This record gives sequence, structure tokens and C-alpha cells, in this order.
Amino acid sequence: MILHGGLRFKKVLTGSWRFLLLVASWELLVVYLDEIRGFEFIGLPIPLVTTVGIAVSLYLGFKNTSCFARWWQARTIWGQIVNSSRDWGNAVANLMPSDSMTVDPDIKTRLIERHIAWVNALAFQLRVQNPRHARQQKWMFGLRRLENRKDLHQTPESYRTHLSDADAALLDTKTNAASYLLFRQGQELQSLADQGKIDAYRHVAMMDRLARFYDAQGSCERIKNAPFPRQVADIGKLFTWIFIFMLPLAFVNLYTIPVDLEGWERWAFAGYTLSMIPFCLLICWVFYLTEQVSASLEDPFNGDATDVPISTISRMIEIDLRQTMEMDNVPDPLPPVEDVAY
Amino acid sequence: MILHGGLRFKKVLTGSWRFLLLVASWELLVVYLDEIRGFEFIGLPIPLVTTVGIAVSLYLGFKNTSCFARWWQARTIWGQIVNSSRDWGNAVANLMPSDSMTVDPDIKTRLIERHIAWVNALAFQLRVQNPRHARQQKWMFGLRRLENRKDLHQTPESYRTHLSDADAALLDTKTNAASYLLFRQGQELQSLADQGKIDAYRHVAMMDRLARFYDAQGSCERIKNAPFPRQVADIGKLFTWIFIFMLPLAFVNLYTIPVDLEGWERWAFAGYTLSMIPFCLLICWVFYLTEQVSASLEDPFNGDATDVPISTISRMIEIDLRQTMEMDNVPDPLPPVEDVAY
Amino acid sequence: MILHGGLRFKKVLTGSWRFLLLVASWELLVVYLDEIRGFEFIGLPIPLVTTVGIAVSLYLGFKNTSCFARWWQARTIWGQIVNSSRDWGNAVANLMPSDSMTVDPDIKTRLIERHIAWVNALAFQLRVQNPRHARQQKWMFGLRRLENRKDLHQTPESYRTHLSDADAALLDTKTNAASYLLFRQGQELQSLADQGKIDAYRHVAMMDRLARFYDAQGSCERIKNAPFPRQVADIGKLFTWIFIFMLPLAFVNLYTIPVDLEGWERWAFAGYTLSMIPFCLLICWVFYLTEQVSASLEDPFNGDATDVPISTISRMIEIDLRQTMEMDNVPDPLPPVEDVAY
Amino acid sequence: MILHGGLRFKKVLTGSWRFLLLVASWELLVVYLDEIRGFEFIGLPIPLVTTVGIAVSLYLGFKNTSCFARWWQARTIWGQIVNSSRDWGNAVANLMPSDSMTVDPDIKTRLIERHIAWVNALAFQLRVQNPRHARQQKWMFGLRRLENRKDLHQTPESYRTHLSDADAALLDTKTNAASYLLFRQGQELQSLADQGKIDAYRHVAMMDRLARFYDAQGSCERIKNAPFPRQVADIGKLFTWIFIFMLPLAFVNLYTIPVDLEGWERWAFAGYTLSMIPFCLLICWVFYLTEQVSASLEDPFNGDATDVPISTISRMIEIDLRQTMEMDNVPDPLPPVEDVAY
Amino acid sequence: MILHGGLRFKKVLTGSWRFLLLVASWELLVVYLDEIRGFEFIGLPIPLVTTVGIAVSLYLGFKNTSCFARWWQARTIWGQIVNSSRDWGNAVANLMPSDSMTVDPDIKTRLIERHIAWVNALAFQLRVQNPRHARQQKWMFGLRRLENRKDLHQTPESYRTHLSDADAALLDTKTNAASYLLFRQGQELQSLADQGKIDAYRHVAMMDRLARFYDAQGSCERIKNAPFPRQVADIGKLFTWIFIFMLPLAFVNLYTIPVDLEGWERWAFAGYTLSMIPFCLLICWVFYLTEQVSASLEDPFNGDATDVPISTISRMIEIDLRQTMEMDNVPDPLPPVEDVAY
Repeated sequence: MILHGGLRFKKVLTGSWRFLLLVASWELLVVYLDEIRGFEFIGLPIPLVTTVGIAVSLYLGFKNTSCFARWWQARTIWGQIVNSSRDWGNAVANLMPSDSMTVDPDIKTRLIERHIAWVNALAFQLRVQNPRHARQQKWMFGLRRLENRKDLHQTPESYRTHLSDADAALLDTKTNAASYLLFRQGQELQSLADQGKIDAYRHVAMMDRLARFYDAQGSCERIKNAPFPRQVADIGKLFTWIFIFMLPLAFVNLYTIPVDLEGWERWAFAGYTLSMIPFCLLICWVFYLTEQVSASLEDPFNGDATDVPISTISRMIEIDLRQTMEMDNVPDPLPPVEDVAY
Repeated sequence: MILHGGLRFKKVLTGSWRFLLLVASWELLVVYLDEIRGFEFIGLPIPLVTTVGIAVSLYLGFKNTSCFARWWQARTIWGQIVNSSRDWGNAVANLMPSDSMTVDPDIKTRLIERHIAWVNALAFQLRVQNPRHARQQKWMFGLRRLENRKDLHQTPESYRTHLSDADAALLDTKTNAASYLLFRQGQELQSLADQGKIDAYRHVAMMDRLARFYDAQGSCERIKNAPFPRQVADIGKLFTWIFIFMLPLAFVNLYTIPVDLEGWERWAFAGYTLSMIPFCLLICWVFYLTEQVSASLEDPFNGDATDVPISTISRMIEIDLRQTMEMDNVPDPLPPVEDVAY
Repeated sequence: MILHGGLRFKKVLTGSWRFLLLVASWELLVVYLDEIRGFEFIGLPIPLVTTVGIAVSLYLGFKNTSCFARWWQARTIWGQIVNSSRDWGNAVANLMPSDSMTVDPDIKTRLIERHIAWVNALAFQLRVQNPRHARQQKWMFGLRRLENRKDLHQTPESYRTHLSDADAALLDTKTNAASYLLFRQGQELQSLADQGKIDAYRHVAMMDRLARFYDAQGSCERIKNAPFPRQVADIGKLFTWIFIFMLPLAFVNLYTIPVDLEGWERWAFAGYTLSMIPFCLLICWVFYLTEQVSASLEDPFNGDATDVPISTISRMIEIDLRQTMEMDNVPDPLPPVEDVAY
Repeated sequence: MILHGGLRFKKVLTGSWRFLLLVASWELLVVYLDEIRGFEFIGLPIPLVTTVGIAVSLYLGFKNTSCFARWWQARTIWGQIVNSSRDWGNAVANLMPSDSMTVDPDIKTRLIERHIAWVNALAFQLRVQNPRHARQQKWMFGLRRLENRKDLHQTPESYRTHLSDADAALLDTKTNAASYLLFRQGQELQSLADQGKIDAYRHVAMMDRLARFYDAQGSCERIKNAPFPRQVADIGKLFTWIFIFMLPLAFVNLYTIPVDLEGWERWAFAGYTLSMIPFCLLICWVFYLTEQVSASLEDPFNGDATDVPISTISRMIEIDLRQTMEMDNVPDPLPPVEDVAY
Repeated sequence: MILHGGLRFKKVLTGSWRFLLLVASWELLVVYLDEIRGFEFIGLPIPLVTTVGIAVSLYLGFKNTSCFARWWQARTIWGQIVNSSRDWGNAVANLMPSDSMTVDPDIKTRLIERHIAWVNALAFQLRVQNPRHARQQKWMFGLRRLENRKDLHQTPESYRTHLSDADAALLDTKTNAASYLLFRQGQELQSLADQGKIDAYRHVAMMDRLARFYDAQGSCERIKNAPFPRQVADIGKLFTWIFIFMLPLAFVNLYTIPVDLEGWERWAFAGYTLSMIPFCLLICWVFYLTEQVSASLEDPFNGDATDVPISTISRMIEIDLRQTMEMDNVPDPLPPVEDVAY
């Protein structure tokens, strides 16, 4: 997630250099064909290109709205994980031991530690690179993707360090480590209930809290595993390129070289036409960036600069829980890198 | 659901060949009538066609937004089935036996197996072809529909194999197998409550979990049985075709053959006009594809390449439950076919 | 609700004949005034009419989105009535009798039968014609409104047949039969609780289920009794007609009869102008249909071809409950009429 | 809330007379300056005015959507008050007395009467005129605002008549009468619980129902006290006027008086230009009405013709509760005034 | 939050003086270059600028809709804090002491006082200035930002004054004071439960109410800590400036100075061109203001004139709770400053 001031005009511009070069070449070719070689039939009437421009803008508007909703939903789920984690701390500390029954403080600590492990396991699983489910882009608005950073949940150690040996051993045979950790929490609660340390009423209340974590995890996995419908995304990209392909053809249509010009005069006139290129490039860039914005919102758990900063949030949850429960080893917050929180 | 990389430009293009041929023919006819036969009155002023183009784009934008919401809702419900299924496993294992009462492990296994059967029965019922409720298209963006694949919930065996004989026999007289399986779960719980093996409080908590499955099932059926309002969908299609019909008439209006041209000169000029056809085709294609995108999102349980991959999800739920409950017969995940998950 | 294939182009076209005739007459008048009588000042510049066209399209887009949300909400509520009804059956059968207390099977049957009566009473109340709250249209996209169909909840018998005599007598003094039936369910439950046949916990759980039915009923009544804001709807219609009124004035502006034409030459030229009429008609039709689509979604409980098929759903609920509870008299599903479910 | 047929074209038109007069004057001035005085530099190129028109339309579309959501939310909350009120009646009658404990019928009646008082107190508080929080308009689409109507919750008597003397006395020192009435309900329940007439479980269930009323009240107050963001609303109005200011300048740009015309010829030509005024007026009216529609949806509790009919709904709740509980003094429904429900 | 009448045209205009000056200078430069120096190649065809204008408008429409949703969500959460606070008062007073157990009135007062402290601590934490998370603007639509106002939650005293000494001491080691206060409430409840003063059932009900406050706090922090995606916001700003940069280039394209004009005649003609500047400025202003509106909705907890008035709401909650609980020291409402509530 880019913080205020993290997106700089210069970076965005230099981040688009491949695009700008490509389009400039196409525009030069069009000017050459139309003005020098006289293939005037490639010119397109402006109003039609305008109509396509509006149709494409509307489509990109639809795509942007949908992608933004997706990103915001991802962020909201992690917000809810924060809320529910605090509530979990509160419930473990203040709801469970009651009446004359006493719950062993060690068990309480275990329930909190395992919860921290779950948060980190979930973050790790969401960060695993799956080319089937997400785009792989090294650059995003001129911001480079961070590689080889353990603290960004790029390795299994991010959650294994929080696990007891017993739990760690159990996880080896399970496909989904995070969801199994929640099941382990359920087993812990059941054993307390079986020993009569929590009553039926509190048992159900705690299990309902676990159900909320299952919901949060599943909602994240849904966003991770169900890519934004490819037909919506890829066809939006196709439309953007169709517009960019057509625009120079409409531009050259405005300039007709007088038929009696020859030789260097013809070239001079074409040079005059070249003045359109920067503006044409600018308009194409507007459409290209619009498409890029929606692409950047598409896969919010990919670890890119524009994605939901789940590593930062995971760390924040850990700090919060450890401080509240008066536990040791409170870590530092994860600092942003070049105005980007990961 | 198409995975990243599953939608290829070439396929999309070749998948539109009928459309492109049809529109190209219409354009040729228009050029012939206007330029050769001189029926100039068929020409349309461009600004009006532009206005229609924008009006149609706006309508398609509305249709796309609504269809996308429908698709995403379908996907969300199945996401919730995943979450609630995990929670069901957790509750059956860790919520039910408590205090001094013990629930027979066989009953627990039966509650899980029947749940897996329910998931598969629901997937099967959603995949049943009903021409009244969904379009039947063999191709979708150049991707062919898979036929005769048992593992894609196209036959009743997809859920019957998960049923005990007793349950299977009961289902014969019921219209809706899936909802009856949930009722059977309720009966199992009641019998436990009657034997005093679960207390009132846990009984209600388990029944509330069943209510959530009724909700999920009913929400899927609502999407399946209530087609996207036909007046919205079909009139959007009609508008697209009206625009495609009008566009060439606006294009030819730009070229007026000098009245004194005769014979082959006239044909030569018309040939010049032909250069417009590829561009006109491209613009029509943009509108056609926009309409196709919304059509592809309309019926998310139809088993098409663009639909919600309920077979893949059902299998995933089964794997998850069996692994967590330490049950045998953990199946393999369902592999995607040509970058499409079903 | 129109099923797939239920909306045919020919019907839509013939269903618009009044509109098309009216607009064609207006266009003829405009051509006559402008071309023959020479009142050229009525011509309008095209770009301004284009702007109005886009402004009107945007307004209709807003209206369409809002009306569609309303329709879909109506459909969703009835989907929830289906889900909650199944859950009600499950709860009556499997939640109520527990421990050592036994609930009389007759009471269970009564709770189910009265529920079926409630569903039908609600459907009847929503179908009652109230000219204050809904438009009265005999035709909708060329589909005729069905009259005098008892099975479509057009008479009170639709729910009275499901009532016991005792309940029927009580309803006479109540304005809202459906909500009173839910109150009767509450009384039945209370009497069970008073007799100690259900414990406090289950009593509250059952009452919460009744609260959900109150919610569903109230949500339907809200949609029925609060018409879509008339200022939004009627002004959208007004705008559509303003655009349709202006469009021909922009069209004739394109053709200027040379001032030196007289007599039959003038008429001949005007004849040439007439070729614009079909296209102008087509554009007007696009706007008219857009407005019609939103009008068709506005009042989803009116019993029109495009409305929510509450009779079909009520019947389906009855079948489902009777089959599940092994009751007699399972009725047949309500068949669609001419590809329309009511 | 305007009922079907309550918005008549004639009224809307006459309700706009000030606007139409103002704009017509501006247009006359523009024609005079441009055509007679020859200040041609005030003319504006049409495409730019078109662009502004579309930008303004888009902004108004955004504003309309947001305002409509606000209005519909207000309506939905009152729909939920209806549902929860019925449920409250059901709970008071059928949930509270159970097992061997008996609740005094007088207390039950008091709980219902006080609830009716709460509904009316809330309606009164929402109708109190606060110039800081809502616009004050005497006319709305040609419909006059009703003044001095006690039954429309314009005086405190609207709820004081429903209060017992004890409650009435307590309210004098409280700022928020409605929320204090809910607190009084809580006190009544607590006293029942203290006397052992309702068990803990039912006590919590009843308190949860009160929490829902707190939610409904707070949601209404949020809409009342947080005006629609003024920057969004007022700048939308500003934009509409900017467009209306510019449009005639674009229109006159179409007509250039030949420079050699002098004296009366010049006036004659200007007269010809005047024919544009009605059309220009019509286009301005479309934008003005669009803005009016959103303004009419902005403050849904203001007591205007277009607002949520909370008096009618309050009366309906009272009728419903009294009939269901077999209480006396069932009032008549509140009749609409000139096809408007208040 | 600006109240009705708080946004005045004059202020908005003078608040834009920097912008207007800048754009006017650019326009003058363009006129000079194009008309006097004859660099005509900088002129841009109007239809293309129109297309960019529409594309930018659509993008800003998307941005406005998303920002408004964010603002409204922030306002809704604080509305829910109001509702839940009243419910908390009701629950503390009327739900907790029951049957034969009595809760000490001092503890009840403490639970209310600490709640008031929590509300103020949350408001303070949301108001803390963090340049990474929010823009810093001194002016907003001509309204100056208020500085050094303790009662606007700009210093920690805003909540410390509501705390007991014991609680205040505990907070020193915690990063998040507000969430720790909720934990303290949980500890208070647990101690009551341990002493047998509240039963398990009421304990869970009270803890669920705390969970709702965790949710509200977390939702506010999510909006505060996750800035509106910078790529969406900053690129929208960039697009606005691209349009503003291009518009004058399209305007000058309309005027071509006859080549044979020289010297002062040339200057005179250029003077004529200057008449376009005010209109061009007006159009640019429309786009600039549209962007400003979305910027003003972006960070709703920043303490600006347009933000959610959390200080006013906090005070209102305090008044409400103190009056209802018959506590002393009821403060006055926070008056608006220059028609703005903070």
C-alpha cells in the first residue's frame, strides 16, 4: 500500500517508458505512412474514434469500480482480522475463566500464541506466488517489487517461528496450515470444556469467535483463488490497446498534405505533423494509466507496492496482543520501504 | 473460471469469426448500395450514431455492473460454503461432545460424510441444464464447453457415491435432494439431543449452523432459478445490434462519390471506401465483446468456462474436511483444463 | 419473471406500435414544417441534442441501476423466505422436541400448515392492486397481463384454503392477515413453553426465526408501499420524451432545401428527407426501451410478466415443506405461461 | 412521499416558473448583446459546452446516486422500525411470560403503549426544523409544503399524548426524549427480571430487541444530523448554473449576423435568433430538474412532499400493534393529501 | 462537516485564487505563443480534447463515488458508536444486576465513565496528524483549518481527563490507549463474573457488546491507516491537470490570425482571442472543483472542515450518557465554528 507522497510523478512517468516508446514508434509510423507515403486511407474520422474512446472509458470505469471494490474488500477483511484478534485477546483473558473454574494461564498464553501463528500463516499463504492466480509484475508505477524479504511473509518461517513443536509437527500432513491451526484452537477449547473448565455457554461463545476467523480466512482465499474474471480484465486491456491503436489514425486524418508538395517540402510538412505526437502520446497515456490503476487493484494479496499491507498488519496485531496480554517479546512495527507499506 | 493466461487474444479473435463475417458482409453491402448503386439516403449523420453509441455504452455499462455483481455474489456464496464447511468440521469435532456426554465417533463421521454429499448434491443440482433458466452456448471466447465429464457434476453419481444406502433410499421421493440432506442432518442432531448426548444450548448452536447452509443453498438456487431479467439482458443485446447496424451507415456517409464518376472509376473509388471496413469492424467488435462479457457473467452456475468453478471448490472442501478430521480417502484436487477451472 | 427465450424481438416490436406511430407522426410533421413550409428556425444544432441525449442517457442509467437494485432486492427477500421456510421446517421437526419433553405431532403439523398459509397470505397481499402504489399496465414488452387467475394470488382464497377455521375467524378483524398469522405462531409457541414442552432456550430460538419472517414481510411491504420515488421515475420519463421531441428537429437541420426549389421539386426533396425517418425512429426507440426497462423493474410485486414470480415461489415452498415433512397433498409446481413465471 | 399520479407535468412546469423566467431573461440578454450590439466575442464553441455538459451530467449522476441511496436508506430504516415493532409486540405477548412465571397484563400494555410513544417521539424529533441541517423550501415540484399540521408530527403533542404521566414528567430534563423512552423500557424489563418474572435468557433476548431500536433511532439521527456533504451538494448546484450560464453563449455562436445588416434588418435577424430560446430553455430545464431531483432526495426527514412518510408509517405501526394486541382506540390510517403521503 | 449555508460561493471562489491565477497565466502564455508568435502547431483538435475531458470526467466520477463511500462509511461507524453507546448505558444500568445479585453502583459508574474515556481516546487517536496517512491542507474550499483547539481532540487531555488515576497509569506502556480501555472493561466484567455478580449468560452478552466497540474502533483505524489508494487518487489529480493543460490548446485552435496581419493589428486580434480566457478558466475550474470534492472526502478523520465531526459526536455521546444515567457534570454541546461542526 503506497503511503501519502509515495507516488511521484517522475516515477510514474519513467515507469511508463516502454509504453511511451512503443506508442511513439507507432505514431511515427502512422505519420510516415500517411504523410510521406500518402496512404491516406488509413486515416479515421475523429467522431468515431471519440465514440470508441467513450465506450472504452465507460468499460474501464466499470472495471475500475469492480477492482476497487475487490481491493477495498480485501482491506476490510484484514481490518476485521485486527478487530477480531483484539476481541479474541479480550475473550481469552476475560471471558473464559469464570465462576469457580480456573483456566491455566499457560493455556491462555497458548491460545494467544497460536492465534499469532495463524495470522502469520494466513499472510504467508496469501503471499505464495501462484502464476495461475495473479499477474507477476516486477514494476508498478515505477516502484520495484521487493524480493527475498523474509519479514514480508515470503518464507514459511514467517509463521513457523510462532508455533509450538507439537503444532508444527501436526501441520506437515495438512495442505492448509492456517485453517488447521484454527481447528487446533477448537480442540484446545473442547479439552477445556471436557474438563469442565468452561461451561457450555462460554464454549459456544468461543467457538463462534473461531467461526469468524474461518470466515475471514475463507474470504481472503476467495479473493486470492478466484482471480478477477479474466474476460473482464483482459478484454478491458484489449480495448485500451484498440483505442491506442486507433487514436494516431484519427490524428493524422486532420492533416492533409497538399498533393503538389514534393521532396523536402513534403518532409517539412510531415515535420509539422510531428508536433501532434506529444499530445497524442499524452492522451494514450491517460487511457493506459487508467487501465494500470485497475490492474494494480486486481490482486490485492500479491505483495506488490499497491497491495494490502498484510505483513504490516500482522506485525501490528502481534504488538497489540502482546502488549495487552502483558506478554514478552513485543516486536517493533514493520517500517515502510520507500513510502510503501507491505 | 478462466485462470490467468487462459484467455488468449487469438482464441478470442477466432471465437468471433461468425460475428466478424456477418458484420463484414453487412458493411460490404452498405458500401455497395451507397457507393455503387448511389443510394446515398442510407447514410446517417455521424453525431447521431455517436449519441446512440454512448447511450448503448451506458446501457451496457449498467448491464455489465449488474451481471458482475451477480457473478461475484455467486462466487461469494461458494466462498461462504467453504468457510461454513470448515466451521462445520470444527463444530462437529470440537463443539458437540462436552461435559460428561460422549458422542459416538461414527455419528461424527456420518455428519461429515453427509455434509460432503450435500456439497456435491448442491453442485450437481446447480449444474443441471435447464434451457428455461440459462443460455446454452457451446463456445465462450473461443473456449469450448466440456461435455460428458462426470467429475464436473454432470451426473447424479457426483453425490450419490458419498451417500449411505439409507440416505440414498430416502432421497428418491424428494424433489430437492440437497435440502433434504440438510434435514437429515437435523434429524441426526435431534436424535442426539433426545438421547441427552448434546445439551439444549449446543443443539441450538448446531441447528444455527445448518440454517446457514440452507441460506447458502437457497441463495445459489435464487441465482440459478431467477435468470438475469430478460428485458435487461435481451434489450442490451438488441441495442448492441442496433448500433452495429447503424455504424457502417455513418461510415459511408463520410465518403461521397463524385457524381461524374462512372464505370470502373466508380468501382475504384468504392475500393478506396473499403479501407474503412477493418476499422468499422474493430469498433463493432468492441461493442460485441462488451456485450459478450456481460453475457458470460450472467449465469454463473452453467458449467461454462467463465462460470464459478463449483466442482473445483467442492473437491477442495472434501480434501479440507478429510484432512482435518483425519479421515481416509483424501482425493486429489481437480486440475484445471486448458487454464480453466470448472 | 420472463424465462430464457420469453422475450421475442417481434413481440417487443409490436408491443411498441403505439409509440412508433406517435413518433413517426411527429417526425412527418417536422419534415413537413421544415422542408415544405420552410419553418427552418425549428431546426436544432446537432451537438446540443447530442448533449441532451447523453445527459438523458446518464439519468436513465441512474434510474435503471436504482430500479434494478429494487427488483433484485425483492427477489432476494423471496429467496430468503424460501431459505427460512426450509429452516422453519427443520426447526419445527428437529429442534423443538428435546430431552424428555414431547411435542404433539399435530401441533407440529399446525405450525407448518400455518406457515404455508402465511406465505400465501403475503403473496396475496403483495398482489392486491393499489393504483396509488403501482402502475397499471395491460401490456409489457408485448406480453399481456394475466387476469382472473386464482392460482396467481389474485383472490383471498389463495391463502384462506390453507387456514384452519379457528385462524380464519380471527383474521376477519385484522387489517394485515399475514402479520397476524405470525403472531398466532408466537401464541402457539408460548402455549408450548407455558406447558413446559419447550425450554426457554429453544423458545427464544424459535421466536428469533419468527422475527426473520417479520423482517421478510416488512421488507416486501416496504417495496410495495413506497413506490420508487415519483420525482425520479416521472422526470426520467419526461426527459426521455424531451429527447424524443428534439431529435427530429436536429435531423431536419441537416437537410436544407435549396430556396429556389418550388412545387413538386420541393416535395421530391422532402421525400428524400423522409429516408431519415426509420433511423430517427430507431434512435428514439432505443431511448424509449431503456425507459421501459426501468419501468418494468420498478414495482416488482405487481403481477406483471416482468415481476418477481411470487406465486411460483409460494407453490415451490409448499411442495418443499410437504415433501420434507412427509405430509400429504403435495401440489404440482406452477407451470410458466408463455415462458413467463408468475 | 409522492404516490403514483401525484407528480403532474403541469405542476412541475408551473413550479419552475421562476427558473424559466430567469433563464429566459439571460438568454434574451445574450441575444441582444451578441446579435444587436455585436459583442460576438461572448460566443462559445459548442464542443466545449458539450464537454462541460457531459462533465456536469456525470457529476449530477454521482450526486443523484448518492442522494437516492440516502433516501432509500432512510426509508429502509423506517421499514425496519415497522418490522421490529411487530416483533416487539410478538415478543411482549408471547416470549415474556413463560414456565410458571406470570407477567402482569398491565405491564405488557405499558410496554406496548410506551413503544408507540417512542415511535411518535422519534418521528417528532426528526421533523423538528433545523435550518443548519436541512434546506427550507416552501415548494417542491409545484407541491406546497404543509404547515401547522399536528398529525404530521410538527408539535410535541404528537407523542406526549401517548405517554403516561410518570414518563412524561421524567422526560422534561432529557435532551433526547426518544432515546430516554427506550431506557425506560429497559428499566421496566430489569424490574421484571429482579422480581424473577423473566429469566436471564429471556431478559437478554428482550434487551437485544431494544438494542435494535437504538440502532434504528441512531441511524435516523445520523441522516438528520449529518447533512449530505455540502461540498458535494452545493458544488453540484454551482456546476448546473455554470452550464446554464454557458449554454446560451454556445447557442448564439451558431448565428452570425451578416455585418452589412443595419437598423431594422438587424432586429429582424435577431428575431429569427429568438426561435432558439424555447429549445435552449428546455435543455437548461433538463439540467435544472436533474439537480432538483437530487435536492429532493437529500434530506428525507424534512416533512416535504418528497420525504419519507414517517407520520403515515407511525400511524400504521400504531394500528398494527393495537389490532394485534386486541387493544382499544385503534386509530384510522393517515390519508394522503393531494396524492402525497406524509 | 460543513452545515447548511456553510459553503459560500464567494469563499469557494477566493479559496481557488492560486489555481485561477496559475491557469490564467498558462492561458495567456498559450495565446501569446499561438497568436503573436505564430506557433500554431500547439493547437489541438477540439474533439480529442473533448474525449479526454469525458474520460477524465468518468475517472473523477469513479473517484468521487469511491471517496464518498469512504466518507459515508466513516460517518456511519460513528453513528453506530452513538447507538452502541446508548445501548451500553442501557445494558450497564438495566441488564447487569439481576435476580438476587447486586452490582455496586460505583462499578456501574466506572463502566460508563471509562466508556466516555474510550470514545474520547478514539477521537484523539483518529485526529493525530500523520503526514504518511493524510494530506495536510490549511484551506478547504476557502475554510481555514482550526489549530490549537484542545476541545477538538488535538491533545491527549481530551481523554485523560475522563480517566481514573489507576487506568491512566496503565495506559503509559500501551501503544493503543483506546483498545486497552476496552480490555479494561473486559477485566471489570470478568471480576464481576468471578464474584458471581453476573451470570454466564449476561457475561457473554456484555462481552458481545464490547466486541462491537472493537469492531467500530478497528473500522475507524482502517480508514485512518489505509489511505485511499494513492494510485487512484494521485492519478486522478494528474488527469485533471492534463485536461487543464490541454484545454487552452484546443481553445486557441479555434482562432487563426490571418497571416497578413502585422504589428498592432496582430496584437488587436490577439486581444480579441483573450475573451476566451474567462470561459476557459470556468471550464478548468469545474474540473478542478470536482477533483477537490473527492479530495475533501478522502481522509474523513483529519480534522478538516469537511471531515466527520467526531468531536461534536463525542460530546453528544457524553451528554446523552450522563443525562440518561442521572450523572453530574453534563457538559454543553460543542458549538459549530463558522457553520462547520468539528
